[in-house]
Amino acid sequence: MNRREEILLAALDVFAERGYTGASIAAVAERVGLSQQGVLHYFPSKDRLLAEVLRLRDERGLDVIALPGADGRITLDTVASIVEWNTERRGIVQSFTVLAAESVLEGHPAAAFFRERYGSARGWMAEVVRAELGDALPGGVTPEQAAPLLFAVMDGLQLQWLLAPDEIDMPALFRAFLALLGAARPAG
Amino acid sequence: MNRREEILLAALDVFAERGYTGASIAAVAERVGLSQQGVLHYFPSKDRLLAEVLRLRDERGLDVIALPGADGRITLDTVASIVEWNTERRGIVQSFTVLAAESVLEGHPAAAFFRERYGSARGWMAEVVRAELGDALPGGVTPEQAAPLLFAVMDGLQLQWLLAPDEIDMPALFRAFLALLGAARPAG
Repeated sequence: MNRREEILLAALDVFAERGYTGASIAAVAERVGLSQQGVLHYFPSKDRLLAEVLRLRDERGLDVIALPGADGRITLDTVASIVEWNTERRGIVQSFTVLAAESVLEGHPAAAFFRERYGSARGWMAEVVRAELGDALPGGVTPEQAAPLLFAVMDGLQLQWLLAPDEIDMPALFRAFLALLGAARPAG
Repeated sequence: MNRREEILLAALDVFAERGYTGASIAAVAERVGLSQQGVLHYFPSKDRLLAEVLRLRDERGLDVIALPGADGRITLDTVASIVEWNTERRGIVQSFTVLAAESVLEGHPAAAFFRERYGSARGWMAEVVRAELGDALPGGVTPEQAAPLLFAVMDGLQLQWLLAPDEIDMPALFRAFLALLGAARPAG
């Protein structure tokens, strides 16, 4: 791992603990044993650091809304597996839950990023739903309605799980939602 | 409106714009034309101000998870009406979206508040679902699973709506989710 990457992963941790608003270059610098100037040499501002953390999230597929488009490889079961995987990486889930919510604040540097990313994610998710379940879901619901609901369920369950991990079984609840959509309910 | 209440409503605005982390007593004071000392006379700290804003939210029924218990008056249609009402009060929705997400951060003063409130909300919501739709929902889903999903859908849709109000029809999407649960789908 090079120094640049090391700083980004430290920044992800700091965002997970304090959010974007509460994070500081100083806290990131301390974590990697650099001076603030040392961090600023790689990333000239906190905004820039946030932008690069979000880009890392895309490159590494760290978040569901960053998955590649509906190229035929993604299924609802893939998405359920990611929800399951998320229970083992609380820091990542926590950082994106807080960063996404903070992005609705006035003048937040990641507002455009999240707006665009959710928009495109709803687009490919509607195609995933249509390919798997057809045009007519139970209750007269359409794939274009199911797509934002799927992301809402994932995000909303993450919040409840972060607050009460012993009470909220995220993977089971996500699969319960898939069952409501009419998807076959896999064992487990 | 007395001075105390005026300060609380100003604080709600400041939390909506900056979140808890980014908010300051100074910003609240400026908004009500008081000195910081003036605000601190009523509320001795930012934590205390947050606690009182959350209590106001409970007293006024400003948020769905603050609704009174399942005493027979709440129905899924009541909840859908609140989702509809929320589209007309963006500031309230924005402040609670950000405050709830921030509460998962290390040592946040509202963590216990949100953890307990979601816990009790899931309890009464399961009873509302059971009273209205019975024990067996489509896909083998139980009322105890439907309850956290309902709050997840509400919270997750709020985030997407705050980011893209022109793309996300919250009330229609919430009613689509009710249709998946097997609730009758009212016109509109």
